[in-house]
Amino acid sequence: MKTDRIYNFNAGPAALPLSVLEEIKDSFLNFNESGMSIVEISHRSKWFDNVINDAVERTKRLLNLDEKYHVLFIQGGASMQFCMIPMNFLQDGKTADYVNTGTWSTKAVKEAQILGKQVKVVASSEDKGFSYIPQGIKFNNDAVYAHITSNNTIKGTQWKTFPDTNGLPIISDMSSDIMCRPLDVEKFGLIYAGAQKNIGPAGLCMVIIRDDMLSMVPDGLPSMLKYTTYASKNSMYNTPPCFAIYTVQLVMKWLEETIGGLEKMEEINIRKAQLLYNSLDSGGFYKGTAATDSRSIMNVTFRLPDEDLEKRFIQEAIENGFGGLKGHRSVGGCRASIYNATSIEAVEALVDFMKTFEQKNG
Amino acid sequence: MKTDRIYNFNAGPAALPLSVLEEIKDSFLNFNESGMSIVEISHRSKWFDNVINDAVERTKRLLNLDEKYHVLFIQGGASMQFCMIPMNFLQDGKTADYVNTGTWSTKAVKEAQILGKQVKVVASSEDKGFSYIPQGIKFNNDAVYAHITSNNTIKGTQWKTFPDTNGLPIISDMSSDIMCRPLDVEKFGLIYAGAQKNIGPAGLCMVIIRDDMLSMVPDGLPSMLKYTTYASKNSMYNTPPCFAIYTVQLVMKWLEETIGGLEKMEEINIRKAQLLYNSLDSGGFYKGTAATDSRSIMNVTFRLPDEDLEKRFIQEAIENGFGGLKGHRSVGGCRASIYNATSIEAVEALVDFMKTFEQKNG
Repeated sequence: MKTDRIYNFNAGPAALPLSVLEEIKDSFLNFNESGMSIVEISHRSKWFDNVINDAVERTKRLLNLDEKYHVLFIQGGASMQFCMIPMNFLQDGKTADYVNTGTWSTKAVKEAQILGKQVKVVASSEDKGFSYIPQGIKFNNDAVYAHITSNNTIKGTQWKTFPDTNGLPIISDMSSDIMCRPLDVEKFGLIYAGAQKNIGPAGLCMVIIRDDMLSMVPDGLPSMLKYTTYASKNSMYNTPPCFAIYTVQLVMKWLEETIGGLEKMEEINIRKAQLLYNSLDSGGFYKGTAATDSRSIMNVTFRLPDEDLEKRFIQEAIENGFGGLKGHRSVGGCRASIYNATSIEAVEALVDFMKTFEQKNG
Repeated sequence: MKTDRIYNFNAGPAALPLSVLEEIKDSFLNFNESGMSIVEISHRSKWFDNVINDAVERTKRLLNLDEKYHVLFIQGGASMQFCMIPMNFLQDGKTADYVNTGTWSTKAVKEAQILGKQVKVVASSEDKGFSYIPQGIKFNNDAVYAHITSNNTIKGTQWKTFPDTNGLPIISDMSSDIMCRPLDVEKFGLIYAGAQKNIGPAGLCMVIIRDDMLSMVPDGLPSMLKYTTYASKNSMYNTPPCFAIYTVQLVMKWLEETIGGLEKMEEINIRKAQLLYNSLDSGGFYKGTAATDSRSIMNVTFRLPDEDLEKRFIQEAIENGFGGLKGHRSVGGCRASIYNATSIEAVEALVDFMKTFEQKNG
């Protein structure tokens, strides 16, 4: 049996810190001397209270959240947020502004429209295949919120600074870059992130919501689709996804105690991204697909001279222990997702492999 | 450090088969020679395809489901189903019949009403504190479905046979007894079960739905709230809760290959329940709270002569390695949840402990 681990460049579910995985493994039959597995303990127990409270507190410390902000754990991924957001905030003919920067923001717009909600797409980068982040956007004063997607996993673009929305609370899908860098959270009314890219396993969405947004939630929504249900019950109105929350707790602990916080994490992420982008820019063989000023430090998308070479590149990469380099099925090409848990060593090894492949095939 | 495992009588999340936990642990850093953890592999990979397809196929074999039935994995637990069911099936003034047998069916009714849907409570056991399952219920011919809760975790009651609904499809919450016995599935239009009691970890709801129910799903619902979204995409419209599905797969494998199917499972469950109920009935010290003909083989609820004794019983049980015996906070008393994964040995040990406790305090 092959026992060694590969270099994992998957777009999500994605690599998690090895020390986190090892802690889960070591405690799996007997969590914290409970005599039970983490998947067998009651969510109403002191053991799980400690887990969820620590996950929340660490998240608050890492992002410098004050008491106006609440950290919630909701099931259904970011896709469930696409409908929950308009259900919770767009009542009585109210409208919202959306910036369309790719597949996921397109879906966010569509789900609001399915509900019959009024949304305005105030900017889009669809004209150039979503290869850039629009600038100088004018937002509507009467909108309830401005929705953006901070990082576009499929297209490899990322907002470097967040837009001036004239005071509109920003709602951002941060599924693929939450915790990748420090955040000036004051602009945000709500942040949501499917955990399976940067902070945990699939099956959990972290939602960070501000008091003023909570106060807009109407009666008349099903309990499980109201943010207030989660905020008032510490995300335990019903049984939460305990294992996923536990994993998030350990990732937050790793970010605080092993990495040393989000400034340090950002330094490492920038270094990893620079290694890869420098490699793409150093010759004509590999070509980055995102506009230079919009390049993501999480998902590096690129093409080779032709599709046959891309196929061979992905195949030889797998044979050499590099997984997940195939671009999203909707766009093709190649993609290296270098989330927080991807080590500099992994990126260096990939850059070496890319050089060797170019020398043989360039 | 205490390394041994306790006898786990938790109501949910609950005990899982030790062999399942051991397999998860052993493969946790390198799933199936992928070089990645199960929580790191792509849901679009061959590895995960095998997991989800095997989970579905084993479920179908265990329950004898023909091609009319679809096995779906949905997030949000049974509580999300309380709203999805009326959203998907109660259009244009249509009505549904609900049987109210406790806390969870009360919530199911409430969530339908929040949505403004017409539901009729055709029977209730609230008159006697939900201590029995109503019989001889008359269902309305014009209802779309008849909703029941097959096992009531909190009250310790369970339907022994399912009602004659005059052809109405039964929708049943089976969160706390799915897979505890063979099932004549033909009566059911939809079965749902939060996984965290009998078949897996928290963070997943198994939904078994028949073709004719799928054909009733209207347009105009958000994608994540429509059963058709899950049925048409093998539960992978968006990233599913991979770890939870993997655990369910292993539990289904254990049911098929270690236990030998649901007939065998039912024999074992009846034997466990009889051991406990015989113990309750053998003297006046312990008193079962459910009506004899409605007793659950999954959750055995009982009282001691007074609340002080109950407190001491629960405390001494913990000290002797028996966890989870406290009754639900809404009703008090004691409860031993003896789901599929609870061994006969565990129940025998509990019965011995109960005898000793009675001798000392009776």
